Amino acid sequence: MDFPNGDIFVGEIIGTAILVLFGVGVCAAVNLHHSKARAAGWVVISFGWGFGVLAGAYTAGPLSGGHINPAVSVAIATTDDGSWAKLPLYIVSQMIGAVIGAVLAWLVYYSQFRANGDEDKAQGTLGNFATIPEVRNPAANVATEAIATAALILPLLAFGMTEGLGEHGTQTLIVSLLVVGIGLSLGGPTGYAINPARDLGPRIAHHLLPIPNKGTSDWGYSWVPVAGPILGALIGAGIFQLAF
Amino acid sequence: MDFPNGDIFVGEIIGTAILVLFGVGVCAAVNLHHSKARAAGWVVISFGWGFGVLAGAYTAGPLSGGHINPAVSVAIATTDDGSWAKLPLYIVSQMIGAVIGAVLAWLVYYSQFRANGDEDKAQGTLGNFATIPEVRNPAANVATEAIATAALILPLLAFGMTEGLGEHGTQTLIVSLLVVGIGLSLGGPTGYAINPARDLGPRIAHHLLPIPNKGTSDWGYSWVPVAGPILGALIGAGIFQLAF
Amino acid sequence: MDFPNGDIFVGEIIGTAILVLFGVGVCAAVNLHHSKARAAGWVVISFGWGFGVLAGAYTAGPLSGGHINPAVSVAIATTDDGSWAKLPLYIVSQMIGAVIGAVLAWLVYYSQFRANGDEDKAQGTLGNFATIPEVRNPAANVATEAIATAALILPLLAFGMTEGLGEHGTQTLIVSLLVVGIGLSLGGPTGYAINPARDLGPRIAHHLLPIPNKGTSDWGYSWVPVAGPILGALIGAGIFQLAF
Amino acid sequence: MDFPNGDIFVGEIIGTAILVLFGVGVCAAVNLHHSKARAAGWVVISFGWGFGVLAGAYTAGPLSGGHINPAVSVAIATTDDGSWAKLPLYIVSQMIGAVIGAVLAWLVYYSQFRANGDEDKAQGTLGNFATIPEVRNPAANVATEAIATAALILPLLAFGMTEGLGEHGTQTLIVSLLVVGIGLSLGGPTGYAINPARDLGPRIAHHLLPIPNKGTSDWGYSWVPVAGPILGALIGAGIFQLAF
Repeated sequence: MDFPNGDIFVGEIIGTAILVLFGVGVCAAVNLHHSKARAAGWVVISFGWGFGVLAGAYTAGPLSGGHINPAVSVAIATTDDGSWAKLPLYIVSQMIGAVIGAVLAWLVYYSQFRANGDEDKAQGTLGNFATIPEVRNPAANVATEAIATAALILPLLAFGMTEGLGEHGTQTLIVSLLVVGIGLSLGGPTGYAINPARDLGPRIAHHLLPIPNKGTSDWGYSWVPVAGPILGALIGAGIFQLAF
Repeated sequence: MDFPNGDIFVGEIIGTAILVLFGVGVCAAVNLHHSKARAAGWVVISFGWGFGVLAGAYTAGPLSGGHINPAVSVAIATTDDGSWAKLPLYIVSQMIGAVIGAVLAWLVYYSQFRANGDEDKAQGTLGNFATIPEVRNPAANVATEAIATAALILPLLAFGMTEGLGEHGTQTLIVSLLVVGIGLSLGGPTGYAINPARDLGPRIAHHLLPIPNKGTSDWGYSWVPVAGPILGALIGAGIFQLAF
Repeated sequence: MDFPNGDIFVGEIIGTAILVLFGVGVCAAVNLHHSKARAAGWVVISFGWGFGVLAGAYTAGPLSGGHINPAVSVAIATTDDGSWAKLPLYIVSQMIGAVIGAVLAWLVYYSQFRANGDEDKAQGTLGNFATIPEVRNPAANVATEAIATAALILPLLAFGMTEGLGEHGTQTLIVSLLVVGIGLSLGGPTGYAINPARDLGPRIAHHLLPIPNKGTSDWGYSWVPVAGPILGALIGAGIFQLAF
Repeated sequence: MDFPNGDIFVGEIIGTAILVLFGVGVCAAVNLHHSKARAAGWVVISFGWGFGVLAGAYTAGPLSGGHINPAVSVAIATTDDGSWAKLPLYIVSQMIGAVIGAVLAWLVYYSQFRANGDEDKAQGTLGNFATIPEVRNPAANVATEAIATAALILPLLAFGMTEGLGEHGTQTLIVSLLVVGIGLSLGGPTGYAINPARDLGPRIAHHLLPIPNKGTSDWGYSWVPVAGPILGALIGAGIFQLAF
């Protein structure tokens, strides 16, 4: 599909902003004190992110195709030579959208973030914005992110081969349930970025926003959720091209 | 779509009553003693409200388009000049339906509400009917409701641009999953009214119903879940018209 | 739709057996010691029953229309005069299927039921088979079941008015999610029979099966989950005929 | 449908690998220390496996029909004489895929498996790979697996009789929700293999992989999750052929 540049720019900003609004939102909902969903568990995190994909990708779809993830844009470029020229536009738009989405989520949870530190319960807030591995080991963390992203990209490309899904508007629904599944199954070790913009954009927002007791933005780890997903996108797209 | 006035009246009353029956019902299910779902958590609340949208909007759909939310009606009016004339009818019907739905939910949980206060466990019951913020701050609460409602309205309007969804009857399913996602992700600070009728109607019912130890109906807060969603509807519809 | 009698008989037996296998199964999964899902909570109960509807109704659909619930058959008969003649056949088949399904679920959890009473943890087992109200009050329990069943029947009939759902095979999916929602929202007081066969069939099985320490089959309550759902079906179908 | 042998081989390897990656992944996510989803409960396990079916079967679909389960392949062969000749190819490919999927899941959770035993919390790790019954009783365990698999096969075959599902690409979605339901409802006693490759493949991987404190691979039980599902597939397919 050939989308005009202006539509790509607007669509990917809006779609990625919605994705990250839901995603950072659900992390704040579960992690922060003074939230009705506090301690609501991993099922809430996974469905929150997955339905963020549903909301963001359906919204962006008519304008830009609804990639809302540089890893998806890279994978699509490898299957369609004409798409390479637009890859930088996609990625820049996604990054802008991701920062905006994180700021919106901070506004939604403004009072909750502001209360961080009351009653001596201050803790770092980066976990609401960017991914933090449970066990820090760059090689293993990259491997986890690469496999999880390949498990997103290969099915996503295959959905396009399934008769009926695209024409009936349900393909994005299936992608969003796939992302729920990736979260449930493969998110345990690193918190599943599987999307460089989803991690880097909110990390930038965390760095800039005036959050009390916010702790480190952990820039030392920031390359992992970029490199892992891009590697995974190339692996997933490569398997797709060999197999189909 | 042009619905006859009588169908709008009946459809929106029925649809909003079903929505609020499910929504107030699920709050009672999780919050009240003597309920099999007591303490079942935020995932139950979010899916209960979302599938209430599924039930109510599919039922009202053939009669009235299934808005069942003044914020949705306002947003649709801004995109279609002919709809302004019917806006008051939509809103009045939604309010009537919301009160009826809350009364039905109270009947379903009649014994549970009646037992409130047994064994010295009395607590206010408003939280089952209307929204109560975790941190009371009108400006922040309005912002939360406005952003969450814009995150409903913009995707909802965009779904209409997705080929296949409307014709195949699955658009309302996607909207209901979107509402599940909004609950999971953005409901933490205020309990997500995102629908003035959903909050004001049950609050009126709470004020009128003879519930033991029911506590305050908190009218001081009641303007927030009206103003926030309407503001959010205008923002969401405005972005839609600029972007699409 | 006009189904041959033999197909109705076979279809409703199979479909209702599958429904009850899943439903009694999920109650056993959550309630019994020595189950991997023990104490997994209300979300598991509600989705288990709902996906039991998905499994049973899709399987029975091509043979009998997939009612698998006397309340549904009564409601359909009120909207289609030709259906009254086949109502007894539907109900008898559903009852046979429900008993079979309960026996199958008992076989699946045979070791778990047999271990009931080990280590002095014996408790009644009826709650896995039939519904038990949290607060015993026949009038209130009938009202709860009637409203919950009307909230099943009215949307279910309205789904047939939604363009696209029936032809594309997704109507049964929407019904099953509706049943998940009813469980989450309206199941707290009585455990939501909303289906006389679902309650009476397994109760008969419980009465007959050799389960250690099984406790009472509580026949005094057994009329409530029959009368409530039938009343609700008539109310739901009546509203449908007035409104549509 | 007639798929070329090469496509069957590649499709079933990829599809089963994805299924097992998600399935073993979600067990590791919930069971292992140092996972963000630790102790997240049965709802996470059931949706993780179900969405693994969604991911694997949609991916394999265009190449091989997406059986990704020897029990499904056996059932399809009984309904289509031409399929017997390809049954060995299907099963061999599924077994290869299942081993690969388990190795990938181990890589995703490499640091988590490696930390098993730190702080004197060592426990056997087989439960992440293969099924272990709660109560060991071969006859009862075979019965549980056979009934649960018949409850997969009979609806799955019936979905093909439902107008609209196949042509619109949503049949695999319904199958994946069915598998979620089987997990929730019928998984309590044995952990629901319902797929010989899903159990035997990861068990082989567990036997071979260098996991600290991994404990036994429990080969004495390994025939149960093969025999039960095959028996169930024959029962489910037999009922289908009698009824439809």
